[in-house]
Amino acid sequence: MQALKERILQEGRNLGRGILKVDGFVNHQVDPVLTMAMGQELGQRFAPVGATKVLTAEISGIAPALMTALALDIPVVYARKSKPITMPDETYTQRAPSHTKGKQVELIVSPEFLSSEDRILIVDDFLATGNTIAALARIVGDSGATLVGIGAVIEKTFEGGRDTLSSLDVPIESLAIVTDMSDGKIVLAS
Amino acid sequence: MQALKERILQEGRNLGRGILKVDGFVNHQVDPVLTMAMGQELGQRFAPVGATKVLTAEISGIAPALMTALALDIPVVYARKSKPITMPDETYTQRAPSHTKGKQVELIVSPEFLSSEDRILIVDDFLATGNTIAALARIVGDSGATLVGIGAVIEKTFEGGRDTLSSLDVPIESLAIVTDMSDGKIVLAS
Repeated sequence: MQALKERILQEGRNLGRGILKVDGFVNHQVDPVLTMAMGQELGQRFAPVGATKVLTAEISGIAPALMTALALDIPVVYARKSKPITMPDETYTQRAPSHTKGKQVELIVSPEFLSSEDRILIVDDFLATGNTIAALARIVGDSGATLVGIGAVIEKTFEGGRDTLSSLDVPIESLAIVTDMSDGKIVLAS
Repeated sequence: MQALKERILQEGRNLGRGILKVDGFVNHQVDPVLTMAMGQELGQRFAPVGATKVLTAEISGIAPALMTALALDIPVVYARKSKPITMPDETYTQRAPSHTKGKQVELIVSPEFLSSEDRILIVDDFLATGNTIAALARIVGDSGATLVGIGAVIEKTFEGGRDTLSSLDVPIESLAIVTDMSDGKIVLAS
């Protein structure tokens, strides 16, 4: 996705240790027009899989997942990292190691919003190690729903997430693919 | 906003102690089409104030704030509740007591994304006690930006937030106003 790639090259910063600072347009300040275009692109790529819901993880996944859900005209569910008082006692809960937080995080979804009839498209801002998305996929499995695809805004190939997720055997799409961040570089796949 | 009011009356549940469960369309599962309509409505009501950015708080504020920002064609910034590694050392940080979490939460915004030239519209999912929005308004003040309005999806009048925020002297708009939740009721202002 050309507009996203240009924005990453213009405004992204390589903070070292694989950390890409894109908080001016993805995950602190958000550009709504760019995010809507991302959602339309992901919606188009995944139109054939017949998703009934988009699933993401709070926090940074919400904006691109919402716009993908808008494009597909289906609801979006965001997994919570702490359980709100409005959620029933029984939940689908999985843990994932957080690369950027240095600890395990919980991902919690209410059974009210995932059913065995659902066909789930997972959308997140980053595909890096794949650990968060793998945890979301386990929640999909716990609910009896069918996982039909995985979409990410930015993929970092050197963290191996695509391999981690390959056993899920669903299409994986990323809008921008970062292949190298060594030596302060930000190299994108063409 | 009629579509929202109908949805609250159809699907909202009064869990007692002023807690309104709307996690089927606002804050766990989100209806993108309804959320876009909310954003358009807030965008229309606040068009005259000339906002340059929307400010919200993660997590549940993100969806309506993003759609409001889309309608106004301006960026949205969401205050973080824990500091990501991509954020500089110096931040604008304010604390707010969380009604639903029973503890203080921090709201953190990078100075990179708020400047003294900015005109800020705060948008959140709930206007209840007003504590979260008041903390966001203090962040706006810390940055030297100008607060120009406050928009909420659902206001609960009986928690006094509008009074708390009245000293800010900006227009306050809510899309649905709950006036009474005593005895299991959900009463909306017409």
